[in-house]
Amino acid sequence: MSNTILYALTDVEWQTFFPGKMRDEVTGLAENAVVVDPLSFDAETWEQQLSETKPDILVACWKTPALPENLQKLTDGKLQYVCYLSGSVRKLLTAEHIDDGLTVTNWGNSISRTVAECGLMLGIACMRRASYWTIGMHRANAWKTPETITGSLFERRIGLHGFGSISRELVKLLQPFDTQISTYSPRVPDALLEEFNVSRADTLESLFADNDIIFELAALTPENTGIVTEELLRSIPEGGAFINIGRGAVVDEEALARVAADGKIQVGLDVYGKEPLPKDSPFRQNDAVMTLPHLSGPTTDRRQDCGRLAIQNIKAYQNGGELESVVTVSVYQRAS
Amino acid sequence: MSNTILYALTDVEWQTFFPGKMRDEVTGLAENAVVVDPLSFDAETWEQQLSETKPDILVACWKTPALPENLQKLTDGKLQYVCYLSGSVRKLLTAEHIDDGLTVTNWGNSISRTVAECGLMLGIACMRRASYWTIGMHRANAWKTPETITGSLFERRIGLHGFGSISRELVKLLQPFDTQISTYSPRVPDALLEEFNVSRADTLESLFADNDIIFELAALTPENTGIVTEELLRSIPEGGAFINIGRGAVVDEEALARVAADGKIQVGLDVYGKEPLPKDSPFRQNDAVMTLPHLSGPTTDRRQDCGRLAIQNIKAYQNGGELESVVTVSVYQRAS
Repeated sequence: MSNTILYALTDVEWQTFFPGKMRDEVTGLAENAVVVDPLSFDAETWEQQLSETKPDILVACWKTPALPENLQKLTDGKLQYVCYLSGSVRKLLTAEHIDDGLTVTNWGNSISRTVAECGLMLGIACMRRASYWTIGMHRANAWKTPETITGSLFERRIGLHGFGSISRELVKLLQPFDTQISTYSPRVPDALLEEFNVSRADTLESLFADNDIIFELAALTPENTGIVTEELLRSIPEGGAFINIGRGAVVDEEALARVAADGKIQVGLDVYGKEPLPKDSPFRQNDAVMTLPHLSGPTTDRRQDCGRLAIQNIKAYQNGGELESVVTVSVYQRAS
Repeated sequence: MSNTILYALTDVEWQTFFPGKMRDEVTGLAENAVVVDPLSFDAETWEQQLSETKPDILVACWKTPALPENLQKLTDGKLQYVCYLSGSVRKLLTAEHIDDGLTVTNWGNSISRTVAECGLMLGIACMRRASYWTIGMHRANAWKTPETITGSLFERRIGLHGFGSISRELVKLLQPFDTQISTYSPRVPDALLEEFNVSRADTLESLFADNDIIFELAALTPENTGIVTEELLRSIPEGGAFINIGRGAVVDEEALARVAADGKIQVGLDVYGKEPLPKDSPFRQNDAVMTLPHLSGPTTDRRQDCGRLAIQNIKAYQNGGELESVVTVSVYQRAS
C-alpha cells in the first residue's frame, strides 16, 4: 500500500466528486492522507507542499496547480501516480511527465453514459423540433397548426459514427426504442458489434445515406478532421437528424450550417469546432438548431461516477492491479 | 364479415395513418370498399353519401364530417361501428350515438409510447436546462461557466402521478437509467406494479416529496382537477423537476408558474389548462420552462401505429372478437 496520498481538491470538488460517505472512503485509502485546498496555493507554495508531503499518489482536479518540471526531484521520485478526477490533464502536467514514468488516469469512460443521455435527448428533441418550439413559444407566441410535423425515434434507423464507449452507452439507452442501429468504425471488431446487436456500415457514405438519425461520435484524429462533408450531410434522408455530441472539428461546420438552414434535416449540437461558440455563429441564428454549450458529460450530479472510478483506480494501484482510463502520451496528445 | 366499409379520409390521413402497403391492407378488409375524400363534402352531400353507401363500418379521422343525428335511419341501421383513427370523437359524433348502440374505437393506447418518449425528452432536457440554454445561445450569446449546474436522470428517484398506459411505456424507456420508480395511482393493482418493478407511493404528498423528478400523468377527472397544489410542487426536492405530459388542468398552473420562477426545480410542459397557451402565460415569459405546444403523441411518423390498431380492430369486429380502445359513453364524457 502506498502510504501518503495528497488530495488537492476544492470544497466544490469534494462535494461533487466524493459526496457523502465517499469522502471518508477515498481518504481512508491513505495511511497518511494530506488534504489541501488548491485555491490557497501559488506556484511557489505548491512546490513547497509537494516537497514537504512527498506523496506517493496525488488526487487532482480542475483547480490543482500545474505540476512543476522538476517534480521527481521535488518528491524524491516518490510521486508515481496522479489520479486526475476530470478529463484533459493538459493544464496539470506535460507529456514529458508521462514519458518520465508518471502514471496518470482521468475520468475516462465514467462520463460516457451522461454524454449518451445528452445525445438521446438531442435526438428526440430534434425529431420534435423542440428548439424551434421552445424559442418560438417564448419569443413569438407560437403554437402548433394542423400542418405541424413531428417525429420520433421509435423504429428508426440510427447511424453511429464511431463506436467507442459513448456509442455503446447510447445503444443501451436506445434499446427500448426498437431501432435498427449501424455504425461506421473501421477498426472495431465484429465480436463487439455482435455483442451490441449493431450492424457495420462499410462506408461513411452508406452510414449517412441509409440511416435516419446520425450521431457524431468519431474521435478527433488528423484523418477525421472535417471528414463529415457537405455531401455526406446532404445525403441524410429528409426528415432525419444530425446530432453532434463528439467533436465539432470532425464536421465541416460551415456546410452543416447551410444544410441546417435548408431545413430538410434537423440538427442538434453540444460541441463546436470553436468553443465558446462565437457570437456570429450561424448556429446561433437558426432557431431550428438545438444548441447546448458543451455540457454533455458528466452532469454535476454524476461527477460521483468519476469519484467512484478514482477510488477503484487508487485501490488497483495500491494492489498492483490494472488501472482504467490511463492517460498515455498518445492519449495526452489527442486530448483537446 | 361486414360487407361495406366507408373510408372518409384525406390524402394526408391516408399517407400518414396507412402508409405504403397498409392502404391496401385496410381496404382489403372490405368486400365493398368505398373511399371518399371528406374535404369534398358539405353536411348535405355527406348525408347523401351515408344514405347511398349504407356502410357497415366507417373509418373516420379529423376531417370526416360530423355524423347526423338520424344516422341509423339514414343507413337503415346498418352502420354499427365507427373506427376513428385519432383521439377525441367529440367533433364526429355525440354520446347519444354511442348510447343508441354505435360501437366506436379511437387510437387509444397506440399513442402512449410517443407520449412517453416526449416525457423522457422533457425530463432529460429539464435536468440539462435545455430550454434556458437553447434560448440563451440563440438570443443572448450564452455559454456555460465553471459554475454551470447540470443534472441527469441516472440513478434518480422518479415519481409517476398516475399509472396508465403512458406511465407504463415511460417505465420501459427509463429502464436503462437505473432509476427507482414510484407511482401514486390509488386504484392500480399491486400485481401490475410488481410486473413493472414500480413502488407504490401511499400518498400524493409522499410521491412529490420523496422523488426527484415527477411526471404528471393523472387522468383529468373532477376529483383530479387542480389536485397538484402549490404545496405539493414546493415539496419536490431542490434540483428536481416537474414534467407535465398529461393534462394541464390537473395542476394549479398559477402556482406552478410561481414555483418555476423561484428556480429551485425545473419545469417541462407539453400540456396546459388552456390551449393554445395564452400569449400572456407566465410560462412563455420564463426561459427556464421548457415548453412544447401539446405535440407529445402521436408523432406524424407514428400515426401508422394508430392505423395498425385500426386494422386490428376492424378484423376483430368482423370476426366477433374483442375491440381495443372502445369509446364508451363515460370515456366520451371524460375526453377533452
